[in-house]
Amino acid sequence: MSRKRLDTQALFEGIRSGDKLLLSRAITLVESSLPIDQVKAQELLAKCLPHTGRAFKIGITGVPGVGKSTFIDSFGTYLSSLGKKIAILTIDPSSVNSRGSILGDKTRMNRLSHDPMAFIRPSPTAGTLGGVASKTREAMLLCDAAGFDLIIVETVGVGQSETLVRDMVDFFLLLMLPNAGDELQGIKKGIMEMADAIGINKSDGRYLEKARQAKVSYSQALRLFPIKKSQWRPKTFLCSGLEGKGMDNCLHIIEEYHQLVSQNGFLEKLRGTQKLDWFQQDIKKQLLDKFFSEEAINTQIHELEKAILENRLSPKQAASTLINNWISRFHLE
Amino acid sequence: MSRKRLDTQALFEGIRSGDKLLLSRAITLVESSLPIDQVKAQELLAKCLPHTGRAFKIGITGVPGVGKSTFIDSFGTYLSSLGKKIAILTIDPSSVNSRGSILGDKTRMNRLSHDPMAFIRPSPTAGTLGGVASKTREAMLLCDAAGFDLIIVETVGVGQSETLVRDMVDFFLLLMLPNAGDELQGIKKGIMEMADAIGINKSDGRYLEKARQAKVSYSQALRLFPIKKSQWRPKTFLCSGLEGKGMDNCLHIIEEYHQLVSQNGFLEKLRGTQKLDWFQQDIKKQLLDKFFSEEAINTQIHELEKAILENRLSPKQAASTLINNWISRFHLE
Repeated sequence: MSRKRLDTQALFEGIRSGDKLLLSRAITLVESSLPIDQVKAQELLAKCLPHTGRAFKIGITGVPGVGKSTFIDSFGTYLSSLGKKIAILTIDPSSVNSRGSILGDKTRMNRLSHDPMAFIRPSPTAGTLGGVASKTREAMLLCDAAGFDLIIVETVGVGQSETLVRDMVDFFLLLMLPNAGDELQGIKKGIMEMADAIGINKSDGRYLEKARQAKVSYSQALRLFPIKKSQWRPKTFLCSGLEGKGMDNCLHIIEEYHQLVSQNGFLEKLRGTQKLDWFQQDIKKQLLDKFFSEEAINTQIHELEKAILENRLSPKQAASTLINNWISRFHLE
Repeated sequence: MSRKRLDTQALFEGIRSGDKLLLSRAITLVESSLPIDQVKAQELLAKCLPHTGRAFKIGITGVPGVGKSTFIDSFGTYLSSLGKKIAILTIDPSSVNSRGSILGDKTRMNRLSHDPMAFIRPSPTAGTLGGVASKTREAMLLCDAAGFDLIIVETVGVGQSETLVRDMVDFFLLLMLPNAGDELQGIKKGIMEMADAIGINKSDGRYLEKARQAKVSYSQALRLFPIKKSQWRPKTFLCSGLEGKGMDNCLHIIEEYHQLVSQNGFLEKLRGTQKLDWFQQDIKKQLLDKFFSEEAINTQIHELEKAILENRLSPKQAASTLINNWISRFHLE
């Protein structure tokens, strides 16, 4: 018992002092699905909670091949040169099924992975996409308490993960290729609409002219969307992760956004709404987990399934029977 | 009390005798969200349940403009000419938000809407897409008990509703336009993969040659998918809803499929799996409904939300508190 408490306290102190090894261990603890680890994780998160809210959180997405890792490598290195501490987390929907992507994230960010100001953590590789998102949110909370100035969440691939990431960050950046034009490179309109900025990556060498044209057409496209609740008008910029160009523009846009949404109260409101959404999701998840983990419930489900297959009960009747039994059982105890 | 019982019994007898007006009223009852109606609906469904399993259920989808209604009008009229009774239900995702589509379904199926062998029922217009699907499943159960030989579920538009419909039918038909080629008319690969047959509609007049080419390329595309659990190899056919051509081919394919899956046991297995899936969905829905309808829960949620916004509790901690309180409250009562 005392050892457990010491562990949590040691992890907490390590996190607060910026010890990246202990932060890493803490994230592993949070990602664990063992009940004993979950108890410790909740203890640790509770300790860290009062020390959060300072980090600014950025989500970055774009189709595979757009150069997200190279961009983040450059952008992170630039931020580090300005004395800023950055944490990079990834959400990879493919990891949910395959239990881990083939390429480790550290190898994809060459400079940053050796930068003492940076912390890189790949996507959790177990559970549902919703579960992965929930664990990423908790990892962000730990990074926030560890004193990082910026937390970048990279989402790999284009699909369901964008919405999940949008719901956990303050600012959402979409990276695009210069040879785009109108067909929007398979990026759905809904994802463009979520973006606070569009960076035209690989704006270098022979693509520069095309990139300039793309910037114009994306700017026009962005203007067609209704004004955001944040009152922010999304910006476009040129960049090259490979050559390290446009990183200052990117930071400038983020700072401009940060100033606006801090002043008009949107940032506080957004973070509040996000937390309440997580609360709702967690209620549902925990309630269902609790329910389905009861042995008596599973025995009954098994019996009711037989009745359903024999047409003695409709699925809905069977569900009512199950729920009502459960409720009344509690009342009798 | 006795009047209520009489009503349900009267509805049940009406349904069993093939009274379309009473069937229609019964579906309205099932669609109602009033608690008192829900109790009666469950009573009625329980009465009907032992009389189901005979109807063959077909889902039909395709992009807007492919001519689904005209096809169903022709196909239904053809079936009726063979002495078969058909019920047509629709699932319209847009109705969930707009509370009803602009065009009533009856006006879109001219001949069938006056055919005594046919019954047409538009999509429920309230609730979530999941709720609409659940009500459509119950309407199908009533139609099945009413003695219809075939039940056709039309899904309007291409999107989330296909999977829902696929999960409630025995056979899934995808309609395509003749001028397709490789780009597949915006139909996602996943939807093609669900199809048991592809009908190239509007295969008439000047489109006939194009339609033949399309048939070849769709046949090739279908062959690339892995073999289905049903062991059925999806077929393609030409048809014209407008000219009433190809209806015999369509029926022939359905009969061939029906024979195969009846013999190899897949049909029974499929229907069993579908029912168990609905059971799982209904358990979750009813449990959450029950939970969130408790006044005490909502009071507590409100208090916990305050604690979350003041950073006193993490969303996850707050959710645990709520669930544990609920459970322990039951134990104390």
